[in-house]
Amino acid sequence: MITSGPAANLIGMTRNTTGKTSLTLLGLGAMGTALARAWLAAGHPLTVWNRTPARAAALAAEGARVADDAAAAVAANPLVVVCLLDDASVDEVLAGADLAGRDLVNLTSGTPAQARARAEWARERGARYLDGGIMAVPPMIGVPEAGGHVLYSGSRELFERHRETLAVPAGTTYVGEDAGFAALYDVALLSAMYGMFAGAAHAFALIRTEDIDPTAFAPLLADWLVAMAPAVHQTAGQLRSGDYTEGVASDLAMQVAGVPTFLDTAEQQGVSTELLRPYFELMRRRLAEGSGAEGLTGVVDLLVR
Amino acid sequence: MITSGPAANLIGMTRNTTGKTSLTLLGLGAMGTALARAWLAAGHPLTVWNRTPARAAALAAEGARVADDAAAAVAANPLVVVCLLDDASVDEVLAGADLAGRDLVNLTSGTPAQARARAEWARERGARYLDGGIMAVPPMIGVPEAGGHVLYSGSRELFERHRETLAVPAGTTYVGEDAGFAALYDVALLSAMYGMFAGAAHAFALIRTEDIDPTAFAPLLADWLVAMAPAVHQTAGQLRSGDYTEGVASDLAMQVAGVPTFLDTAEQQGVSTELLRPYFELMRRRLAEGSGAEGLTGVVDLLVR
Repeated sequence: MITSGPAANLIGMTRNTTGKTSLTLLGLGAMGTALARAWLAAGHPLTVWNRTPARAAALAAEGARVADDAAAAVAANPLVVVCLLDDASVDEVLAGADLAGRDLVNLTSGTPAQARARAEWARERGARYLDGGIMAVPPMIGVPEAGGHVLYSGSRELFERHRETLAVPAGTTYVGEDAGFAALYDVALLSAMYGMFAGAAHAFALIRTEDIDPTAFAPLLADWLVAMAPAVHQTAGQLRSGDYTEGVASDLAMQVAGVPTFLDTAEQQGVSTELLRPYFELMRRRLAEGSGAEGLTGVVDLLVR
Repeated sequence: MITSGPAANLIGMTRNTTGKTSLTLLGLGAMGTALARAWLAAGHPLTVWNRTPARAAALAAEGARVADDAAAAVAANPLVVVCLLDDASVDEVLAGADLAGRDLVNLTSGTPAQARARAEWARERGARYLDGGIMAVPPMIGVPEAGGHVLYSGSRELFERHRETLAVPAGTTYVGEDAGFAALYDVALLSAMYGMFAGAAHAFALIRTEDIDPTAFAPLLADWLVAMAPAVHQTAGQLRSGDYTEGVASDLAMQVAGVPTFLDTAEQQGVSTELLRPYFELMRRRLAEGSGAEGLTGVVDLLVR
């Protein structure tokens, strides 16, 4: 096993005597702090920096080294993880740092375009670049059974080299060399989640109009959503084959026929239909195109310009 | 055990010599046919009627008795199950039938208001009434491991008496004496499902703009939706307590700050934002009301007029 010293530096990492890679973390918001605690708890030597020093001080008591500025933090370790508010903050924080030879892992949320531009920016500065999208909230970090994971894309070499260290706070999923893919997957998954939450909000609004305990309704709702989530496999299969009638159990014509029941129920119960209408409109448009024997997959085509 | 004869008739059911309650089913669309097959397979004497006779003929070969008209079908058994296209069809089909003393179970989809009116209509005709909302597609009927179930509301007496028979095609969940509740729960659950499907459609549209295999993305999407579905328990708890900040891991202020990333990504990838915008608008409205420390539950309040 390689420990700290020249040999370790040659392959871009340093390890302490217990074989744990040392690293730097920039950004100690709720997520950054959770990441820091997970690495410290696992015995990784950690250098931290945060714009507001108070959060770093708390971590110092737990064993973190606190750098005086971002440039010093970057200089401290070959592996540098960044978890800041947004892409503009990455620019500001790393403006004075020497990134040559660094392995830069950027967990800051952003668009695929920002991730691609950041990868190019890092390359120009002599750094390897891996972008990450965190599929978890802070309480899930360092708790493997919570099922959180981080999507990574960009340098496969960097990912493979630091896989073990990156796996400490949460599971890892590598989704491709294109640095923008982690952000794309991240945004896609979170968008789907907001859709589910929008549907759940409408459902709760409906039952709230009657004397029904929401905590008695919630188990039915959770079970139903979990039971229906695997429908995305059929959607994916149809998108791949191009045959949107494949295995359809309830066709678009029948589902569109049921739409007035959903809208009328909302109206009669005094619940706004604003969250439901856009999807129903797309179902109707697809049906009007003569796709009554399909399921719902054709809606995807209507969204792509 | 009571078998067919006067004693059985006294409590509103007839059973064959194997102890299986005999019943009538009106309506043999895809769902009605699946229900009929489940009862026949379980040994229940079954009388069927359908407007288009061809579907009934197919079931006759499997042991069903075919009535000449709806009135005769209703007269054949104390337990009458109706599974028609819509509420107007129930009016038409049952117009000439004598419902006095019948146990009428209506599985026709509709609004809570239609179910309540139908319960009153049945009462006026001397029938007990149970309304049902089927949370399953036809292939899930008669397949217990598929997890489908039927929500029932209305006469608890009717439900308890026929519980065993009703449990043959799918699991049963009784949700209250108010005949409209099964329809309300049904519409609420299906509305939530459409929200989830809308979110998934947006996600698939995003990844389709790149060279990504949708069947490789689908497992991540299904797992993520399943992992996030239990968030509805927190929403329900907050709605009950009235404290929308309870246990919040990612507050509204932070989530609204992330909204531009979702909208920009869609714009840059050439995907319409029409399915995402309404929910984000409500998040912003709630934040503007000074609710930045809450999670997303406040959106429910904005939907109820």
